[in-house]
Amino acid sequence: MKASADLLLLPQWVVPVDPEGVLTDHAVVVADGRIVDVLPAEVARARYAAAKTVALPGEALIPGLVNLHGHAAMSLFRGFADDRPLMAWLTGHIWPAEKKHVSETFVRDGTLLAAAEMLAGGITTCNDMYFFPRAASEAFLQAGMRAVVGMIVLEFPTAYAADADGYLSKGLALRDEFRGEPLLGFAFAPHAPYTVSDTSFSRIHTLADQLGLPIHTHIHETRDEIADSLKEHGVRPLERLARLGLLGPNFIGVHAVHMTEAETELLAEHGCHIAHCPTSNLKLASGVAPVAEFARAGVGVGLGTDGAASSNRLDLFAEMRLAALLAKGMSGDAAALPAAAALKAATLDGARALNLDSEIGSIAAGKRADLVAVNLHGVSRQPVFDPASHLVYVAGREDVTHVWVDGKPKLRERSLVGLDADDLAARAVYWRTKLTAEGQS
Amino acid sequence: MKASADLLLLPQWVVPVDPEGVLTDHAVVVADGRIVDVLPAEVARARYAAAKTVALPGEALIPGLVNLHGHAAMSLFRGFADDRPLMAWLTGHIWPAEKKHVSETFVRDGTLLAAAEMLAGGITTCNDMYFFPRAASEAFLQAGMRAVVGMIVLEFPTAYAADADGYLSKGLALRDEFRGEPLLGFAFAPHAPYTVSDTSFSRIHTLADQLGLPIHTHIHETRDEIADSLKEHGVRPLERLARLGLLGPNFIGVHAVHMTEAETELLAEHGCHIAHCPTSNLKLASGVAPVAEFARAGVGVGLGTDGAASSNRLDLFAEMRLAALLAKGMSGDAAALPAAAALKAATLDGARALNLDSEIGSIAAGKRADLVAVNLHGVSRQPVFDPASHLVYVAGREDVTHVWVDGKPKLRERSLVGLDADDLAARAVYWRTKLTAEGQS
Repeated sequence: MKASADLLLLPQWVVPVDPEGVLTDHAVVVADGRIVDVLPAEVARARYAAAKTVALPGEALIPGLVNLHGHAAMSLFRGFADDRPLMAWLTGHIWPAEKKHVSETFVRDGTLLAAAEMLAGGITTCNDMYFFPRAASEAFLQAGMRAVVGMIVLEFPTAYAADADGYLSKGLALRDEFRGEPLLGFAFAPHAPYTVSDTSFSRIHTLADQLGLPIHTHIHETRDEIADSLKEHGVRPLERLARLGLLGPNFIGVHAVHMTEAETELLAEHGCHIAHCPTSNLKLASGVAPVAEFARAGVGVGLGTDGAASSNRLDLFAEMRLAALLAKGMSGDAAALPAAAALKAATLDGARALNLDSEIGSIAAGKRADLVAVNLHGVSRQPVFDPASHLVYVAGREDVTHVWVDGKPKLRERSLVGLDADDLAARAVYWRTKLTAEGQS
Repeated sequence: MKASADLLLLPQWVVPVDPEGVLTDHAVVVADGRIVDVLPAEVARARYAAAKTVALPGEALIPGLVNLHGHAAMSLFRGFADDRPLMAWLTGHIWPAEKKHVSETFVRDGTLLAAAEMLAGGITTCNDMYFFPRAASEAFLQAGMRAVVGMIVLEFPTAYAADADGYLSKGLALRDEFRGEPLLGFAFAPHAPYTVSDTSFSRIHTLADQLGLPIHTHIHETRDEIADSLKEHGVRPLERLARLGLLGPNFIGVHAVHMTEAETELLAEHGCHIAHCPTSNLKLASGVAPVAEFARAGVGVGLGTDGAASSNRLDLFAEMRLAALLAKGMSGDAAALPAAAALKAATLDGARALNLDSEIGSIAAGKRADLVAVNLHGVSRQPVFDPASHLVYVAGREDVTHVWVDGKPKLRERSLVGLDADDLAARAVYWRTKLTAEGQS
């Protein structure tokens, strides 16, 4: 008798990520939201009776992409103030606009818009940091997207909270409330060394250890950040965090553009992770993180889109390709960050940074069924010599045809399932009108 | 009485490139393959009776993109040998495979595949360099794409020609034969300083002057190329070409990654043009051309995809975005190569390098109707604050919906007109099978 299953996927290629390589004419079997088997298609047809079978000729099935750093709600600031350097961009445009406009509603609308964009582009998990994380959590749940929501902490007051204590207690209360949601996780998200005090960092360090949660923070994004820290604290920001005890396997440092060799070694010794956001780092003229060095030292590197305000596209295919290209161009080694490593960074390495690698990040029996089908047929993708390499250097998010999160369809034949794209776009127009009418752009 | 026209295009925005800026609710009127008017939509409706009207709500109309450097037929080598440095890639993989397989048929099939990919992605003109340029010319004509075909010259024998004289005479004969074709132009294409002798360069210089044609050559792509030239010729390659008299407004240097300040000044003084190919330069670990320096010095910079063997995508939207991002990240100036300049590089500046700027490169009355509609509506592109900036930082080639070359439709609602995409893909599979069966991959 055949075993029953919910879903039998029959792509031309399966790219499991771990182990590296490509399986041809294999099936992926899904039941109760989990991958239960990966086996030759012919055997699968004989062994399983599936409620639904999806044939995917010319398509590669990959694990859902993990966006290791973003500010989802900032999708509403997409293209709001391009071609400006980080601090002028933040202080002259983004921060004033945030002060005036960011609210529960703004965050819900922006996060839903971002979730729709991410899901349509094959991103099934994101690590988010923004104000009003309750609204973001609700939006991710509504979209059916897996998310690690940041319990954001800063010292300065916003419409969301008055001081570091306020941010922290709101974040922890949110986590308590949503603890039963299987798609939601939480991380401490102290914004950055230049916006968070030693006292707050120390408290977060203690709490993160007690609760076993990741710490998600911006670090060494710009030279100015480092110069200011030297002036104010007498040490570079990473050294300051090291002294406060924050470095460990639960530490996710975002950007890490300006790094000495010793600092890279320090990250490696402590088993830290880096969220590499190459588009954002170039666009804001911050520079390029030494990813080939990180790889050599053994520092885990995941990929992030950052917010759409700085990267303009929440597109992890673009980040994969750019990360692979930059690693080569900057190191002078055309074999640096080869395609398989870039794909691993965008999936399993990101999952590991979030301590979710036992559940997601690769296509393996037992893992949650976060799966993405990518069409490699068509004039812009032919011929296909190596599907794994094509996923990084040739394919784009526009080639994503189907997406499942936890075994549930989120994109079907390039159409979003359960999200009203027209309504989301109309809400974006509403916010653009508000943002520009008040002279913020 | 109304004036008659062939085509009335009604996009939400017109981005003419020259002048810079965005026109809202304007019409572009086309007759006999030329743009005859650009005016407010309401006035256009009253003034013109068009055989066909195309409403383009939510879309931006831009000039067709100009790909200033490519090897179209190499689309058949897409992903053939990724993650390898330039010389190992050329000598160990590409050159042996070319020796075995490249023929009239290969070039026709590969060029047609590339033309289909380029047209679908908004590229209406390309500057091409490859063996068997007759086959390439025929393919471009079949596709109805505007092309400047390179009369390629090397010293070493291939299936196409035996020696520099052979290459040159074949190229010149081809040009004579196709001189009546309005969509085709020709350029001298001495491959590179390391494959072409002083004698050949001198002859080409004389001929180019006599015939008023561009000279299209690779230059300063890698450090090794420069070191070898110092050993063999006692000078760097650009200095060698300067001494041979080749630098002038008809000179298109491809790559120009490794440049001294004096060399950049030399290019500016002579009015030379650079074809910047950022993806290829990163992927082969050659480095990054100093585009912000070129801009400061006044060197004209167009954008190229290079061949799909090295860049994997013939995607000028990707090159525009990468060029704009890299210029900022490398110079430390977030205002370097702003969106408008990147779009100009991909259109008018490329046209100027080819001496075609009186005919194409911007949307202006009197120019040929090479036009591209880009859809900026949808969750991944909303909200739109500045359409011109969105074209570079947000949109991708997947957002191209309609393409016209010389007023003739080449892409309609994202479907190629007059090209059989399935047949082209099937031919690509045929060549992949041949290339891999013989152990070349």
